[in-house]
Amino acid sequence: MSLDLRSDVIDLLAAIVDIESVSGGEQRLADEVEAALRACDHLEVVRLGNNVAARTRTGRAERVIVAGHLDTVPLADNLPSVIRTVDGEERMYGRGTCDMKAGVAVALSLAAELEAPSRDVTWIFYDNEEVEASKNGLNTVERERPDLMEGDFAVLGEPSNARVEGGCQGTMRFSITVTGVAAHAARAWRGVNAIHEAADVLDRLGMYVPRKVVVDGLEYIEGLNAVRISGGVAGNVIPDACTIEVNFRFAPDRTQAQAERYVRDYFEGYDLVLVDSAPAARPGLDRPLAQDFLRAVGTDPAPKYGWTDVARFSARGVPAVNFGPGDPLKAHQDDEYCSLESVRTVRSALASWLTA
Amino acid sequence: MSLDLRSDVIDLLAAIVDIESVSGGEQRLADEVEAALRACDHLEVVRLGNNVAARTRTGRAERVIVAGHLDTVPLADNLPSVIRTVDGEERMYGRGTCDMKAGVAVALSLAAELEAPSRDVTWIFYDNEEVEASKNGLNTVERERPDLMEGDFAVLGEPSNARVEGGCQGTMRFSITVTGVAAHAARAWRGVNAIHEAADVLDRLGMYVPRKVVVDGLEYIEGLNAVRISGGVAGNVIPDACTIEVNFRFAPDRTQAQAERYVRDYFEGYDLVLVDSAPAARPGLDRPLAQDFLRAVGTDPAPKYGWTDVARFSARGVPAVNFGPGDPLKAHQDDEYCSLESVRTVRSALASWLTA
Repeated sequence: MSLDLRSDVIDLLAAIVDIESVSGGEQRLADEVEAALRACDHLEVVRLGNNVAARTRTGRAERVIVAGHLDTVPLADNLPSVIRTVDGEERMYGRGTCDMKAGVAVALSLAAELEAPSRDVTWIFYDNEEVEASKNGLNTVERERPDLMEGDFAVLGEPSNARVEGGCQGTMRFSITVTGVAAHAARAWRGVNAIHEAADVLDRLGMYVPRKVVVDGLEYIEGLNAVRISGGVAGNVIPDACTIEVNFRFAPDRTQAQAERYVRDYFEGYDLVLVDSAPAARPGLDRPLAQDFLRAVGTDPAPKYGWTDVARFSARGVPAVNFGPGDPLKAHQDDEYCSLESVRTVRSALASWLTA
Repeated sequence: MSLDLRSDVIDLLAAIVDIESVSGGEQRLADEVEAALRACDHLEVVRLGNNVAARTRTGRAERVIVAGHLDTVPLADNLPSVIRTVDGEERMYGRGTCDMKAGVAVALSLAAELEAPSRDVTWIFYDNEEVEASKNGLNTVERERPDLMEGDFAVLGEPSNARVEGGCQGTMRFSITVTGVAAHAARAWRGVNAIHEAADVLDRLGMYVPRKVVVDGLEYIEGLNAVRISGGVAGNVIPDACTIEVNFRFAPDRTQAQAERYVRDYFEGYDLVLVDSAPAARPGLDRPLAQDFLRAVGTDPAPKYGWTDVARFSARGVPAVNFGPGDPLKAHQDDEYCSLESVRTVRSALASWLTA
């Protein structure tokens, strides 16, 4: 049975949740999504791998992008979906309900319904968001059809409790290796214990005071943390190396280069190896189109702390926000669920913005 | 070809080195050793698994034990043995030359030659010394034939640069787990970073001042060291646990219970789990038989820091020392070797003691 994009959005959500699509296994869902979108005469549909894009071409002055990923984290014996009322709230339980098929269901439903939206829309459904960034389907879209990523504003339907979350912090990881001199533990004085030497690095981390900064009206709180430590080779050897992996989450007023400089200065005297890095994204909520969006959806924006694909659009000069149904704290949980009311709220807010 | 215990000790050493005997694979060497000892009419031979004991029964007033293990650590492409002159020193290179087939060759050579030693001798050759203590062949001997472990003095032929090393330090390991509260690294303020909290444990280790103490005339230096540290689960998670493994090497004037009390007091406020423990051994060099031994071998004794099977004899009330050819720093090395001169020195010293 093929997807009926014009059915009630909750029925549509159940249908796509029940098509299992763990990262790497999105093909069947992508096939269904492609077929359903191709049935809409007002949409131009492009298929790239297991990524599907569809756009209106009505010649509006502005174009917006609404995007969502099709994949989920692995199952926890939580399919098929089931609707239950808990604490007076109607919820759909099941893998992907929250992260983020609810957002995808809203987008598919509106893609079919809005034949002549007030702004041209490019709808993007992509694969492999839940695995390493190098596999993310938006890479394929950017590389093969960059025109599909062009627009004046972008909305990602990631779970945000139906609130608008703007921008995102950057993230950067370093490894700091403190060295010593190996020796037999019975003759410790012949060596230098690298784990003991690492205390200074941990002490510096303990003294860190998080910087708070307001960017485009949203307050961000930075963070500098050890996320891993390892040292030692055997129970009878004075270790000659101890490695600490440090993660820096930085606000959107710093470039990656500035963030890197900050961390290197903070650990002056140590040799830092940059492990990976992703830029922050300014919320960009001061632009007129963003202001229109905020007025239409009627909620106050909050800062986004975690890194999301929003940053990918920001890096291309497209202001972007997260706005989707579901509580982000339920993402990836064994009891993942999405409140049905939040699905309807987000659908209605986006519909009013795209028809105003 | 069977072993010729009456050949030159260097030839005998080459012969037993070239019979590979990595821990668990000692059978062939044990077979050869057993057969060669059984050919000596003056010896009573006992075989227990891959352990071989042989003893004289001439009714002397005193009995001494000379023991050595047959196994080696794994090969490093370093067999068969080869003799080379390096830095003016004649050396035999190859796995086991130093640790401790040189000591075994000396014992086998003297076991065959000394038909009527001045002290009765129990020669013990055992397996699985280089692996976990529970597999050590002396466990089998102690359990099945405790009479073979009885004596007035014991010499272990472990490499000691042909010096006498007395007693040994005890060793004890603890694991200390520092806990925190997990959180996403983008919202670090919601968690408590266990790696940062571990700084206090490392600071205490850094402030440790090794105690030095003289026991039975030998000076021991204690040591308290982190030997391993680990913490963290992912690059984007504030870790909720960091575990430090601490090793305490303690002098023979402390019992295990006293040593444990000391460490628990030192880390007051933390929850310590005892991982393993082995007692220290007093050198016992104040006893007359030990004094005779020191006079005969003509070297000043030094303290033994590492734990060896010496402690096993001490625990049974048998004073014991390490005295063997080879530089202990070459044990387990890829370029393991033993100086030929030290083999002859140790053989001659033991011979003079056992015939005086």
